[in-house]
Amino acid sequence: MSVSTATPVSATPAADAAAPSGRAPLPVLGRDVTVPLVTGGEVTYAALDYAASAPALQRVWDDVAAYAPYYGSVHRGAGHLSQLSTELFENARRTVAGFLDCRDGDQVVFTRSTTDSLNLLATALPDDCRVFVFETEHHAALLPWGSPRAVGRGARVTLLDAPDSPERAVRTLEDALAARDPRHPALVCVTGASNVTGELWPVRELAAAAHAHGARIVLDAAQLAPHHAVSLRALDVDWVAFSGHKLYAPFGTGVLAGRADWLREAEPYLAGGGASRRVARREDGGVDVQWHDGAARHEAGSPNVIGAHAVASACEALTETGFDTLAAHEERLIRTVRDGLADVPEVRFLSLFGDDAPRVGVLSFVVDGWNGSHFAAALSAEYGIGVRDGLFCAHPLLRALLGGAPHHGGECGDPGTAPGGTSPHAVRVSFGAGTPDEHVERFVRAVRELVREGARRRYRTVDGRCVPDTSA
Amino acid sequence: MSVSTATPVSATPAADAAAPSGRAPLPVLGRDVTVPLVTGGEVTYAALDYAASAPALQRVWDDVAAYAPYYGSVHRGAGHLSQLSTELFENARRTVAGFLDCRDGDQVVFTRSTTDSLNLLATALPDDCRVFVFETEHHAALLPWGSPRAVGRGARVTLLDAPDSPERAVRTLEDALAARDPRHPALVCVTGASNVTGELWPVRELAAAAHAHGARIVLDAAQLAPHHAVSLRALDVDWVAFSGHKLYAPFGTGVLAGRADWLREAEPYLAGGGASRRVARREDGGVDVQWHDGAARHEAGSPNVIGAHAVASACEALTETGFDTLAAHEERLIRTVRDGLADVPEVRFLSLFGDDAPRVGVLSFVVDGWNGSHFAAALSAEYGIGVRDGLFCAHPLLRALLGGAPHHGGECGDPGTAPGGTSPHAVRVSFGAGTPDEHVERFVRAVRELVREGARRRYRTVDGRCVPDTSA
Repeated sequence: MSVSTATPVSATPAADAAAPSGRAPLPVLGRDVTVPLVTGGEVTYAALDYAASAPALQRVWDDVAAYAPYYGSVHRGAGHLSQLSTELFENARRTVAGFLDCRDGDQVVFTRSTTDSLNLLATALPDDCRVFVFETEHHAALLPWGSPRAVGRGARVTLLDAPDSPERAVRTLEDALAARDPRHPALVCVTGASNVTGELWPVRELAAAAHAHGARIVLDAAQLAPHHAVSLRALDVDWVAFSGHKLYAPFGTGVLAGRADWLREAEPYLAGGGASRRVARREDGGVDVQWHDGAARHEAGSPNVIGAHAVASACEALTETGFDTLAAHEERLIRTVRDGLADVPEVRFLSLFGDDAPRVGVLSFVVDGWNGSHFAAALSAEYGIGVRDGLFCAHPLLRALLGGAPHHGGECGDPGTAPGGTSPHAVRVSFGAGTPDEHVERFVRAVRELVREGARRRYRTVDGRCVPDTSA
Repeated sequence: MSVSTATPVSATPAADAAAPSGRAPLPVLGRDVTVPLVTGGEVTYAALDYAASAPALQRVWDDVAAYAPYYGSVHRGAGHLSQLSTELFENARRTVAGFLDCRDGDQVVFTRSTTDSLNLLATALPDDCRVFVFETEHHAALLPWGSPRAVGRGARVTLLDAPDSPERAVRTLEDALAARDPRHPALVCVTGASNVTGELWPVRELAAAAHAHGARIVLDAAQLAPHHAVSLRALDVDWVAFSGHKLYAPFGTGVLAGRADWLREAEPYLAGGGASRRVARREDGGVDVQWHDGAARHEAGSPNVIGAHAVASACEALTETGFDTLAAHEERLIRTVRDGLADVPEVRFLSLFGDDAPRVGVLSFVVDGWNGSHFAAALSAEYGIGVRDGLFCAHPLLRALLGGAPHHGGECGDPGTAPGGTSPHAVRVSFGAGTPDEHVERFVRAVRELVREGARRRYRTVDGRCVPDTSA
């Protein structure tokens, strides 16, 4: 195998005009990491799984490294570094509030991830809340509303059918909200950009529909925030959730930001120090607790200061670079993929809203005649390209897109077990601010070669991992 | 229980023989950081608030920095770095299991902190569980059992009176367990070392008492694990919880390790991807979820790989240095404090078990005639020493130790508002593997000078922070 026989990718004039150089807009860690190829030699690793976890921005790493020697206990320490760390932590909160264009009075709670943020909101639902969510959501947005803490307080989930257009999504939501008993409070949870198709959802219109029907709305911006500016004000959403590890800040911190009232009235997410203002033993042997009202109410335990600082650093870096620049770069990479594979009929991209729907740099596809796991393994072993295969923690959506139950690899974390079969198990390629053109061009060339010429090795699944069969 | 004037602790020859030089056993980040003094000049910062958050070990930082360029999505990515990251993450789990001397079949769940770990266990209680906890516990160990998820499933908490000796603690627990209705499952939660007094609790004896009465026991090792070897097997405890940020690995990760059965049978801690094995829409519009059985069940969302790696790195560094060496160093520093302040009757150390009780490097005290916040502020501003003041998120214990309700600064996060008054609000000094002798020697000298000569500045509270009054 040769890693250097690049197939020319035709660029449109418009793309050329908008195109910066082939360099990534923002340098990331790992950009010089090389990996061995099963066919011999080494190649620079092409990280094309941004939708799962993006590499850290160099800027984020530098900011973390600069702060780390000054790390200290926050909130209640009397020393210089404690006070510096407390300021840094609360500054991070303000930076995130600015990044999300929060309203006065909105709260920014640091969590560990989008999953955590939505679970927190699920524990803060008012009694007997009705939650509306499309069946197309990934599990983080689909499942928290059915958790014991939510259900125990009367939450009921209505799953909405997969729409075939943004307009249909809005109509479907409107119909469901109109049919509900308006005496119950209601929440809509919607993703900003699909973690499978990359398609953008009509968030502003869905928010308008929610509010017109007296419901609130939370935006799952896990896949949106790394790619587009997210304004709570402009989108008029009540809450936004996102993850640091998808926003180039993989230090264990996520965010839930938005309306303070439900959060203030909710039981604390975690019970412990930091969330409690006063604790006293009662005469009857019980404990009286007075909880904090602000963000601290849901942040019990010592906060992850480094994680919050890293997220704030990423927010600043993305804002300074500008989402226009980032989006133009990404648009060009998306066109590289679509144009470069347009004449490969074996490759079928997954889409709810149609091939030309606006999307972020996330594309999933199936390859006729290929087991998705083996295809992904070949991209890694023969080209040094890291993508993802499976159902992407969005099983109902994948079933809708693939038509019927997936054959193999139906489990999260299980890359499929068919020995070279033709599972409809999908492959996802995703990229962003740290992706140079070469990575995506290599991906396109690799897909074309694999489809046309087949893999140079056989692959088999060992301990749930698909690896080259070295016994052959 | 006593709040006594310090008495000299006689040094044993064995301890003297074991004492290393005045250097810290393990280098930490920030060891060269200087801070300005309000009296002019700069001084190396003495971080003496390890019990809240310890600085990162240099080794931990180096390991994180070496890995960061190789960071990738775990579990479901097909690329090299995803596979490397997955291995690193699962290796971290094994390292922690070894560090805690886990039994076969025990689970290691990565959480964000001890608080998070104990909240997780509180959601995993079997129905109608009876929980026994001393009123002397800090809030992280005291409050999770009263959370809605626990109470909703019938959990009831019995608070045990503050004991005045380790033997009394065991008898108190035995009496309470004997008096309980044995048809209910029961859990005992006990701290290994107090975050206020630093005193060691008789964990092995409490575990024996718990098991003799058919109860289980969880050890809160937040303050113990950084100072002494913790063996689940030797202590015969069912679970152990600890925090990375107190174990020199402040990257947002904690641990709950122990028996798999309650964890396997519990509802997932967070609902989302990673925890779910299969998700399918039902005919009736609901969702069927099949959850994972192992640690992943409670780790929904993308794991904090860097945090887990950092914790594992710290476990390795502490083990390689040896807890005998670490404990000998710390013993010497404890004696420096106690001996150095033995003839200062205004300084009264807080203790449940008496002044000579074995402890880790955590000592709290009140200073007659001083507001604790002002004392801590003076240590920082005039000596560059970072300690902590307040009630240490252990309000009932502080009330027991201080006798009655504290006057000022009764709130977590509020350092007290008395303008120079004599609040019994305490001051805590704490140290560990990264503390050179000079820091503790400076602390002793500073306390003696402040008590004898008074502060060189006046202090006042601004926005909840106690600062030098520069208007004077």
